Amino acid sequence: MSFTDRLGGLGFGGDYNPEQWPDEVRAEDVRLMTEAGVNLVTVGVFGWARVEPAPDKYDFSYFDAVMDELAAAGVTVDLATMTASPPPWLATEHPEILPVTQSGTVLAPGGRQHYCPSSPVYRDRAAKLVEALATHYQGHPALGFWHVGNEYGCHVAECFCEESARDFRRWLRRRYGDVEALNAAWCTDFWSQRYTSFDQILPPRLAPTYANPAQQLDFKSFSNEALRACFEIEAAILRRVTPDVPVLTNFLAHHKPVDLHSWADRMDIVGLDSYPDPFCPRSHVAAGLAYDLARGAHGGDPWYLVEQAPSAVNWRRRNGVKEPGLMRLWSWQAIAHGADAVLFFQWRQSRGGAEKFHSAMVPHAGPDTRVHREVAALGAELAAVPELAGTRVANDVAVLFDWNSWWALELDSRPSDGLKAVDRALDHYGPLFDLGVGVDVLPPGADLTPYRLVVVPNLYLLTDEHAHGLAGYVSAGGHLLVSFFTSVVDGNDRVHPGGCPGPLREALGLRVEEFRPAAEGEVFLLGDGTADLWREDVRVEGADVLLAFPDGTPAVTRNRFGTGTARYVTTRPDEKIMRAVLAEALAEAGAEPVLRGLPDGVQAAARTGGGAEFLLLLNHTDEARTVDLPHPLHHLLAPGRPEVEQVTLHPRDVAVLARHSRSEVS
Amino acid sequence: MSFTDRLGGLGFGGDYNPEQWPDEVRAEDVRLMTEAGVNLVTVGVFGWARVEPAPDKYDFSYFDAVMDELAAAGVTVDLATMTASPPPWLATEHPEILPVTQSGTVLAPGGRQHYCPSSPVYRDRAAKLVEALATHYQGHPALGFWHVGNEYGCHVAECFCEESARDFRRWLRRRYGDVEALNAAWCTDFWSQRYTSFDQILPPRLAPTYANPAQQLDFKSFSNEALRACFEIEAAILRRVTPDVPVLTNFLAHHKPVDLHSWADRMDIVGLDSYPDPFCPRSHVAAGLAYDLARGAHGGDPWYLVEQAPSAVNWRRRNGVKEPGLMRLWSWQAIAHGADAVLFFQWRQSRGGAEKFHSAMVPHAGPDTRVHREVAALGAELAAVPELAGTRVANDVAVLFDWNSWWALELDSRPSDGLKAVDRALDHYGPLFDLGVGVDVLPPGADLTPYRLVVVPNLYLLTDEHAHGLAGYVSAGGHLLVSFFTSVVDGNDRVHPGGCPGPLREALGLRVEEFRPAAEGEVFLLGDGTADLWREDVRVEGADVLLAFPDGTPAVTRNRFGTGTARYVTTRPDEKIMRAVLAEALAEAGAEPVLRGLPDGVQAAARTGGGAEFLLLLNHTDEARTVDLPHPLHHLLAPGRPEVEQVTLHPRDVAVLARHSRSEVS
Amino acid sequence: MSFTDRLGGLGFGGDYNPEQWPDEVRAEDVRLMTEAGVNLVTVGVFGWARVEPAPDKYDFSYFDAVMDELAAAGVTVDLATMTASPPPWLATEHPEILPVTQSGTVLAPGGRQHYCPSSPVYRDRAAKLVEALATHYQGHPALGFWHVGNEYGCHVAECFCEESARDFRRWLRRRYGDVEALNAAWCTDFWSQRYTSFDQILPPRLAPTYANPAQQLDFKSFSNEALRACFEIEAAILRRVTPDVPVLTNFLAHHKPVDLHSWADRMDIVGLDSYPDPFCPRSHVAAGLAYDLARGAHGGDPWYLVEQAPSAVNWRRRNGVKEPGLMRLWSWQAIAHGADAVLFFQWRQSRGGAEKFHSAMVPHAGPDTRVHREVAALGAELAAVPELAGTRVANDVAVLFDWNSWWALELDSRPSDGLKAVDRALDHYGPLFDLGVGVDVLPPGADLTPYRLVVVPNLYLLTDEHAHGLAGYVSAGGHLLVSFFTSVVDGNDRVHPGGCPGPLREALGLRVEEFRPAAEGEVFLLGDGTADLWREDVRVEGADVLLAFPDGTPAVTRNRFGTGTARYVTTRPDEKIMRAVLAEALAEAGAEPVLRGLPDGVQAAARTGGGAEFLLLLNHTDEARTVDLPHPLHHLLAPGRPEVEQVTLHPRDVAVLARHSRSEVS
Repeated sequence: MSFTDRLGGLGFGGDYNPEQWPDEVRAEDVRLMTEAGVNLVTVGVFGWARVEPAPDKYDFSYFDAVMDELAAAGVTVDLATMTASPPPWLATEHPEILPVTQSGTVLAPGGRQHYCPSSPVYRDRAAKLVEALATHYQGHPALGFWHVGNEYGCHVAECFCEESARDFRRWLRRRYGDVEALNAAWCTDFWSQRYTSFDQILPPRLAPTYANPAQQLDFKSFSNEALRACFEIEAAILRRVTPDVPVLTNFLAHHKPVDLHSWADRMDIVGLDSYPDPFCPRSHVAAGLAYDLARGAHGGDPWYLVEQAPSAVNWRRRNGVKEPGLMRLWSWQAIAHGADAVLFFQWRQSRGGAEKFHSAMVPHAGPDTRVHREVAALGAELAAVPELAGTRVANDVAVLFDWNSWWALELDSRPSDGLKAVDRALDHYGPLFDLGVGVDVLPPGADLTPYRLVVVPNLYLLTDEHAHGLAGYVSAGGHLLVSFFTSVVDGNDRVHPGGCPGPLREALGLRVEEFRPAAEGEVFLLGDGTADLWREDVRVEGADVLLAFPDGTPAVTRNRFGTGTARYVTTRPDEKIMRAVLAEALAEAGAEPVLRGLPDGVQAAARTGGGAEFLLLLNHTDEARTVDLPHPLHHLLAPGRPEVEQVTLHPRDVAVLARHSRSEVS
Repeated sequence: MSFTDRLGGLGFGGDYNPEQWPDEVRAEDVRLMTEAGVNLVTVGVFGWARVEPAPDKYDFSYFDAVMDELAAAGVTVDLATMTASPPPWLATEHPEILPVTQSGTVLAPGGRQHYCPSSPVYRDRAAKLVEALATHYQGHPALGFWHVGNEYGCHVAECFCEESARDFRRWLRRRYGDVEALNAAWCTDFWSQRYTSFDQILPPRLAPTYANPAQQLDFKSFSNEALRACFEIEAAILRRVTPDVPVLTNFLAHHKPVDLHSWADRMDIVGLDSYPDPFCPRSHVAAGLAYDLARGAHGGDPWYLVEQAPSAVNWRRRNGVKEPGLMRLWSWQAIAHGADAVLFFQWRQSRGGAEKFHSAMVPHAGPDTRVHREVAALGAELAAVPELAGTRVANDVAVLFDWNSWWALELDSRPSDGLKAVDRALDHYGPLFDLGVGVDVLPPGADLTPYRLVVVPNLYLLTDEHAHGLAGYVSAGGHLLVSFFTSVVDGNDRVHPGGCPGPLREALGLRVEEFRPAAEGEVFLLGDGTADLWREDVRVEGADVLLAFPDGTPAVTRNRFGTGTARYVTTRPDEKIMRAVLAEALAEAGAEPVLRGLPDGVQAAARTGGGAEFLLLLNHTDEARTVDLPHPLHHLLAPGRPEVEQVTLHPRDVAVLARHSRSEVS
Repeated sequence: MSFTDRLGGLGFGGDYNPEQWPDEVRAEDVRLMTEAGVNLVTVGVFGWARVEPAPDKYDFSYFDAVMDELAAAGVTVDLATMTASPPPWLATEHPEILPVTQSGTVLAPGGRQHYCPSSPVYRDRAAKLVEALATHYQGHPALGFWHVGNEYGCHVAECFCEESARDFRRWLRRRYGDVEALNAAWCTDFWSQRYTSFDQILPPRLAPTYANPAQQLDFKSFSNEALRACFEIEAAILRRVTPDVPVLTNFLAHHKPVDLHSWADRMDIVGLDSYPDPFCPRSHVAAGLAYDLARGAHGGDPWYLVEQAPSAVNWRRRNGVKEPGLMRLWSWQAIAHGADAVLFFQWRQSRGGAEKFHSAMVPHAGPDTRVHREVAALGAELAAVPELAGTRVANDVAVLFDWNSWWALELDSRPSDGLKAVDRALDHYGPLFDLGVGVDVLPPGADLTPYRLVVVPNLYLLTDEHAHGLAGYVSAGGHLLVSFFTSVVDGNDRVHPGGCPGPLREALGLRVEEFRPAAEGEVFLLGDGTADLWREDVRVEGADVLLAFPDGTPAVTRNRFGTGTARYVTTRPDEKIMRAVLAEALAEAGAEPVLRGLPDGVQAAARTGGGAEFLLLLNHTDEARTVDLPHPLHHLLAPGRPEVEQVTLHPRDVAVLARHSRSEVS
């Protein structure tokens, strides 16, 4: 049984925190859920203070009632472990659990997530609670999934307290064994930082100037693993007590502190929270990158959109609403990128507290509102295509992304502070998206043999092992496109011998003599357009120069290596040039868009499974668009699922098409 | 006897801190004061370290000499209680009095105001000093007023130390009685913040993310009251020892932490410090708002301008001077808004210390300077119109302003951070000012029956009681104009059931489905102009739409309710539209400007009393302006007080006119 | 023997930190050094952790090998005292040495310079190390110079810990003797700050508002001297153990915390680190100011450029490379301003650590690179003109600069925050540079008799003594040009009696009634151009008005005083006006440019000594420039040193010319 089969189709629902209202509201909630097609809700995320009002005194009566009512209504529960926000009494009795900032400020309770991830007291208290919860709810008919913690590291990603210092030292002992190995890895001979004992090492607290970059980088790895250990302690209990209930947590999209690649294989399903900014015209592209990454982190399996906003959020400076149709469009976009569930934060809008201006499936103004009507309509629509659940996405272009490189690239004392990992990834992902090419986003150690083209956007940190993997991919016939400032350092932020691109030098057929960061606002002429941000003094060693600056400096090169090719881009070309460079690489690699001839702004995505092929079309524009299909397809969202050869999409409209719809084959 | 009679006319003078110079300078000071018409000086604001050089050792000899000399010269003293800045020895012996910031930094002595308002040690030391001072100076002929503290909360408005935490808990116990009431009020079920004891509660210290908004709001109320308690401890002593001496303090204009409405009834006279920026062309309008509020907070009584600058201040990034005439103009403006005294900070410019570049009535360059000449001329002018003292201002338009709503509106996690209470009040007050309409600025609980039109600028927090008061005002025939995002939450920052505008829904004849904050810089077309910042999805329920956006969304509505009307503005229209909207409301309400047909940039204000009506005309422009009078009036500032039918005002000029000048009636 | 004779010519080399690489790299290093003409390297700056791995356990074996190898290759060593960055064990055993910020944060180890300058433990540990080092290396053939510490105060210029508080009190006791003198100096009667004991005084830690400005100013003096004491402790040991080895440290250019004037006479050679920003088109002018100041601080003696970058640095937001030729040009510029050595940070680019992206003489990409080739070419060129070493620069225009005034000018609560001491000095120095005039930059107490014109840019703090010195200079026939906001306060930031310009009033023939800071972006019309930033209401008392604003307010005045003249500039004129004002003053003073008729952008500088006169020409533009010489000169960088009457300089080119070249006279 796959996890998806629990729901018999796509998941639809949201966070349900009924403890904010009088008990009598729950009856209306359940009725409205049923009417809106809700089949999955997340319960109990902030339940700790209620179920454990004093140490070791558990009272599950409130959530028993909620679970029973939801079970009766046929709504499955993704039950939270309730450990994301400790109750006040815990901080009062154990102030040592409070996190400490880099400059030594103890963070107070009063918000949420006020715990040091390394705190033994917090971990012990959380484990006891989870044991009690799992024991209490095992076998409950509503229990469908476990939702461990909540948005790990959202507010407290790193803690600099004494407990964290001790834990960091343990981590370093495990990693390096003896202190001389650490000295070598951290290059402590510079700035007189040579340690003679692990006991001398501290987290990179605020120092007079730049802390050792390898120390900073290791601390980011450590902090990621300290958070992950919190998850694992809970997951181990759950898997022991309720082995059949899948375990997930909700990752944040584009969240630097948590290395999704290092957590994903510990999940039964990858859950993702995604809050694109409606004021940003390209936020769906950035969302697409996050979705492709979430899918790619778990072997291409379907993932769950655990949180999104029905309309506005409350935590930006200006919180734009989702114009009519946009919530529907972006929900379908998640499915187009492989999601099997579309959930919201939250069901009913809070009356008080910090998130009361976050939109909800039932707004302050009640169900007779545009937002709730759109929610209910989406629920009905998703319920009409259960056969999409469990189908998969396959692409032949990969983009590499890596948290270690992200962490290292954005440390201080770099040639330019203009290089941001996600922005740079989007500089590559965006043109591919616009070209209609489906992409898998993968870590650098992934198996690349299925891919025709592999794109490497500024992977500053690249280990020898991963570099050799890339070189091997090319020599075996693969096509590679690498952007500047890639393969500069090893896993300890040490420059590769001989400088950039280190172990990729032979495959790329060049070496970099000097980086030439641009001044802010500086623009270079390049071909018919421009470039900015960066240039490099490159000396080709076999590579051909495909595009050069007016002074002859290479901008794009291409090297034949083995039976493949390796391109190198030494600058940030403007979008038009970048699209052309990628198009040429795609063409040479034989990689195709999902659908040829798509009008501007329309996204096409394919999902396959259960003997059917599905084509999703999404109109990201404010104008109508007409798409000609290569062959007749069933229009699954139209009454009677007619076969069509052309689809007209209204502004922000969606079409789901199938070659063999389940209604035919069943 | 009214307080004003003490001076026999308008007060004129400033802070006098002679301890900064050798004793021999005082003789020149007193001579220059006499020549400049000074009749009131504030003495001793920073005297604590001098009068109590060691614990409980008082030495008043220095100030005895000063008081005697001033008495001899006929200058009345507003004697400070000297508690605004504790002496160094107090912080050395009791470092626990030092305030602590939200992130835990202990603020050091070395500046001023370095005390925790809740500190029992500080309060006790201050009380002892005030007892000694009052006992010593009771009956002194120079003693005219008590000046308690100084600019309460100017630098330390909130303290997060352990003592403040204890005091906050006591305050919460008094407010809520039991912790379950607090849990309900604060909505602690969200984010697992449910308290089981008051002892678990802390001030909203820096937390991983947003602290509970109701906690933040209560802490602002508590902090205001902690400061007020410091005032009250001193005032109680003074009223016991010297029951005939009026007690005041100097509030800061537009000062968020101190709720003037909650302090005013504890004052004998409301004192205000006002420092409009000469570089800002509309700063006199903002000053007018502050003056109308100071007057409105104390039942329309005359108030004292306790501090203003003779020319530049020293604490802005760029400190512009007051061009010739501007100091006079702005001094008269305070009187036009109901002030009975015009005082400056400070008499003689400091040689050293933090305020030495703050202008003074006697500049560094001495009395033979433009600034001093203008000061002396103003003194003579004020002395010539003693009959203005004690007269009153009356208007038939009210604008509501409320500190609780200010505090709540500007908390974090709001739909838009672009809504600032004072700016929004000015968006309404400014057009009324430009239309020549006199305005009273009142708290939402004020008696509104005298007013033809009541304007409510974005009163985000509005209690049921106050909302019903407004609805009652309308149903009884009043005219109301309410701007968007009003009546969203109750006194605990909880959204009114059913959403905005909650208890005003019936009176306004509409409900708000969703807020639509604008992106930064976003502008909407509206009528012949534009709007920005905000829109709302409003569903009218009886109200007429007076003005709509191109898509039909209401921008301005009007509802007949009982025998009155209630307008609602869903956006921020540009100035021209806003003026037209207000003009229409004024017209319907039958509210008139002070004087019809005024030229642009000339302010007219009326004061009445003692059988006379005074008309003040102020030319806020750099060009001459001619004003035709409706009937002949005496020109009080002209030699012989001639009757005139027309007044020509030079740039920045002022005219004071009277129907029956005292010179006639006496 | 002069210090320069140690090297037999100009010094060339850089920081050499070979401990970052395996031992075998050193042989290649020494070979490449020899090929590149390196004769001087700085060794051991970050050596402490290596030579003292545990308290009192010294191990010099590593540096013995390095020193021996360098001696064998004939490379002189500037040996560091290794105290700039304490080893980890010291902070672990003695956390009390860690510096504390103004708001109380303890700065952590992990970077460098993590010590409180007043720490007795640090000072004691440093002294023991230096004793051991000096004893060990005395007489070593490679030892040429001692390099004490490193960039004192670069990261930790002020410490606010308890130890610093005690040391500050000791310093204040020495300065003021009794606390009443301090009260008078600090004007503590304002804001109730009167101290009754030195024990009550604290460093100016973060306070509720502005700390006492005299306290702040004294703390800056104290902090400068606390750092200097660290230097002096080490220097005293070195001079006792190795009396023949000259002692220096490397100052930072334009470094506010360290008063170079107060340190210079403790140096045998002034060393300077200079990092002009290649992205800034005028950074060579700012560098020139720093160089002229370094020379002027030590009686005009040759100084050493101890650090500069071969190409990019790593600590700006965007780090631009030095385009081809720029490193050579800027190296020669230092020599043109009197340097006798040109050194780089660092020899070989770091593989790891915080400065790995700082360029080096041997880049990551190795010696076969543009950067290394330019380095080696420069080494050869410098070796070809050994006779320049020891020659001197002489000018007849002086610009005054003073750290006390810098500190005071940039305190808080000033009329305008737009007055920055270095920028204002550049507003005067820049036009002189462009006019081709050689300048000495001197402290206000310097002997001014040799100078025809003395320029005083906004010397806000000017003591009576120094003011009288300036007045005496003028009355004896000197020519003075003073800019606004000069001579406002005395050495305790107390306004001079009667206001600005206090003791310069008679010499300038005017007084200032009021300062009129401009608003941000405000521009005034002035003559054919504009002015901005500032105006003053000046009353002339004898001075002539040379230039006035349209309203008649003086902009530039000139007063005959004794047999000299004193000009005063009341505003910041635009560059063209400022140049004309200075040109007129130069003409009246009879001061000449180095060479008449120079093309734009070409700098000329003269050095003299050993019977020869040298003329250096530097083309700071990107275009070729031709210079006609007044008489034939030997072109020392051309093969055979031909006599030429005209020199054509390529873009960024340099020429070194001599009337009697050593090749002729020897």
